[in-house]
Amino acid sequence: MEVLRDPERADWKRILTRPGQDASSLREIVEAVFLEVQRHGDQAVMKFTEKYDGIRQEHLLVSEEEFARANANVDEKLKKAIIAAKLNIERFHLSQQTAVVHVETVPGVDCWQEKKAIEKVGLYIPGGTAPLFSTVLMLGIPAQIAGCEDIVLCTPPSGDGSIHPAILYTAKLCGIHSVYKAGGAQAIAAMTFGTNTIPAVYKIFGPGNQYVTAAKQRAALQGVAIDMPAGPSELLVLADASADASFIAADLISQAEHGPDSQVILVTTCPELPDLVAAEVERQMTTLPRKSIAGRAIENSKLIYIQEVSKAMELVNEYAPEHLIIVSEEESYYLRHLRNAGSVFLGSYSPESAGDYASGTNHTLPTNGYARQYSGVNLDSFMKSITFQRITKSGLRHIGPTVEIMAAAEGLSGHKNAVTIRLKRLQAEGRD
Amino acid sequence: MEVLRDPERADWKRILTRPGQDASSLREIVEAVFLEVQRHGDQAVMKFTEKYDGIRQEHLLVSEEEFARANANVDEKLKKAIIAAKLNIERFHLSQQTAVVHVETVPGVDCWQEKKAIEKVGLYIPGGTAPLFSTVLMLGIPAQIAGCEDIVLCTPPSGDGSIHPAILYTAKLCGIHSVYKAGGAQAIAAMTFGTNTIPAVYKIFGPGNQYVTAAKQRAALQGVAIDMPAGPSELLVLADASADASFIAADLISQAEHGPDSQVILVTTCPELPDLVAAEVERQMTTLPRKSIAGRAIENSKLIYIQEVSKAMELVNEYAPEHLIIVSEEESYYLRHLRNAGSVFLGSYSPESAGDYASGTNHTLPTNGYARQYSGVNLDSFMKSITFQRITKSGLRHIGPTVEIMAAAEGLSGHKNAVTIRLKRLQAEGRD
Repeated sequence: MEVLRDPERADWKRILTRPGQDASSLREIVEAVFLEVQRHGDQAVMKFTEKYDGIRQEHLLVSEEEFARANANVDEKLKKAIIAAKLNIERFHLSQQTAVVHVETVPGVDCWQEKKAIEKVGLYIPGGTAPLFSTVLMLGIPAQIAGCEDIVLCTPPSGDGSIHPAILYTAKLCGIHSVYKAGGAQAIAAMTFGTNTIPAVYKIFGPGNQYVTAAKQRAALQGVAIDMPAGPSELLVLADASADASFIAADLISQAEHGPDSQVILVTTCPELPDLVAAEVERQMTTLPRKSIAGRAIENSKLIYIQEVSKAMELVNEYAPEHLIIVSEEESYYLRHLRNAGSVFLGSYSPESAGDYASGTNHTLPTNGYARQYSGVNLDSFMKSITFQRITKSGLRHIGPTVEIMAAAEGLSGHKNAVTIRLKRLQAEGRD
Repeated sequence: MEVLRDPERADWKRILTRPGQDASSLREIVEAVFLEVQRHGDQAVMKFTEKYDGIRQEHLLVSEEEFARANANVDEKLKKAIIAAKLNIERFHLSQQTAVVHVETVPGVDCWQEKKAIEKVGLYIPGGTAPLFSTVLMLGIPAQIAGCEDIVLCTPPSGDGSIHPAILYTAKLCGIHSVYKAGGAQAIAAMTFGTNTIPAVYKIFGPGNQYVTAAKQRAALQGVAIDMPAGPSELLVLADASADASFIAADLISQAEHGPDSQVILVTTCPELPDLVAAEVERQMTTLPRKSIAGRAIENSKLIYIQEVSKAMELVNEYAPEHLIIVSEEESYYLRHLRNAGSVFLGSYSPESAGDYASGTNHTLPTNGYARQYSGVNLDSFMKSITFQRITKSGLRHIGPTVEIMAAAEGLSGHKNAVTIRLKRLQAEGRD
């Protein structure tokens, strides 16, 4: 862990540089996968699953029998925990429902905005070292609340060709019946073009490795919307002397265990905290099962002392962390001036892992500084808004001349005439 | 105009095919522009402006003097019209402001969602045959209401190196002081990487030709957010016998004059309407100044008679029109079942051009069927949401065990430990 003390403003950019993840080198591979899935559909998906995951498949769709087996294989205690988490996530995402926005801009001109579900959505759940059934909750729950009609889920099969039972159990719990054993770029390509088995969708959600990220970018070129560009997970802890070093260390380690390219950063106005936290991290790491993964992320981590509260805030806003823990007596100052972050955890008893699973907030969040311009996944991510207007005769008399003048000035006389023809009719009616 | 009568369901896709606009052939050209602007900044922007727009420039930033000259050159009547339109657009977009969403998911677990402005945004206003000062309103007003700190505007200079005075007047009116004389892919590249003169932004908005669209897609690969993929403008009119053929014809023509690749479609449950509208279009076209442009779009247009109301609705939802006019006694049925559209105009006195300028709704809308998954530009387009959680000791006692069980099942013991270490502390405190 590198300890830095009041680094120069000019050095911040370098210090806060994220691990490089240029997907451009993967573009050719992904392009080849897309072309073949577009041409050969299911056969191509199975071919790439054999090539990249080493598994030969007979079918892609998870059967009812497989769902039933999964259900039998999930521990009752885990089921209860998943249900408890689901309730909280549901409560928070239900509260994000918005009413129709309605306003009469001028007498006789009614305008409103209404949100509708995106009909077909695809959820991607990565495979790899952890079976992320929690991500099924985070994507499946808002999709269901939004009212998406077709929700499909793709996830790569594990070594024996099966899907982790907790993923299937959670999918079913969220009303998702169409689960496909497909991962990587081939799964994203399948949801982009559609195959005989896997339907095409309008928007693709979910995290993934660099191939999946590159594939989602490729899907976007094809007109499919995506939730956000994804990158390695990050945590920034902003703390002062009121914080507990052992709690902070536990939080930093929890983030570091996601992967060797995870970023963990402490920013503190307390000069002693960096060393205290470093010692605690070392102590706690000894018993961590995923030590080898977390260790590499911890090596690259920074513990930054910054004397001034306002400068600490500036640094946080510049970094735009995915996860931000604030434990400080300056909390209200920070909350007032915070501009960029994905999800924020306040106080000593709000560990980041609570938001990963069960507080109710979504854990699919913008990484890589994208919190500057992207929201985390929320209810609106599964909806789009449509605007409406109803103009009465008197309404058109009000705004018609404005439209005529502006359309004429833009050189669009057809636009002008669509109003003029109606105003003339009204004049004629008026004379009757 | 092609008249179709109750076409087979299987033929809809072919009938509704949009004019091809595969940007992939432009990718190489755009890539070259991006590389050069990244390397050579302003010099590259000026070089491409000379190459593509035929204009040699000394500077890119519009000066205060140029603003003042523009102000003097805009007709007072036009100024009044722009101000009137601005008021309506402001009213509608102000009404889209949302309160903080706050919910206590379980006792002691407070979660909330707050929206914040995207700090740096870039607006692109195309040049070409029409000076689109109305688009300055449509992008500038919500950016200002959202509270974006840095709003920059790029627009290509016209033949004499100047910007149309109405564009500059409108920009100033919307509080935009940084206007750059740059267009095409080089403007998008400049806002992506930043140059000495043009700042880099976090999100780029606005319509444009195929080069601009391809450039925005390229910017997205660089991590810059974009409003939506853009395509040629479209109008679908859904009407029955209660509609006025001459009004419909005027609306179809107004859309057709945007460009030869504009799409205009009539779907009607009235068997006589297609021929009546076709005759009216022919009559009205004779006096249209932009006849040569509109004529080509009109040639490709379809007038579709469909007997059943429900089938007509299905066709509209499948097409997902950017603009949808509904003039029908079945309006309430259509409103209930409408799934996909950008902006909807109801009744005989709601011409589409009213929404282009002055009703209050936004005219930057999803084309090319993207209304299935994208919203038109609205206040939220200029903001991102951040979630917050504050968990008390008793809150963590409630949800802690759930987190521990789930984290353990995902194999993430660091995540579990971040809770365990706190629960242990609470146990110890309890014993005190």
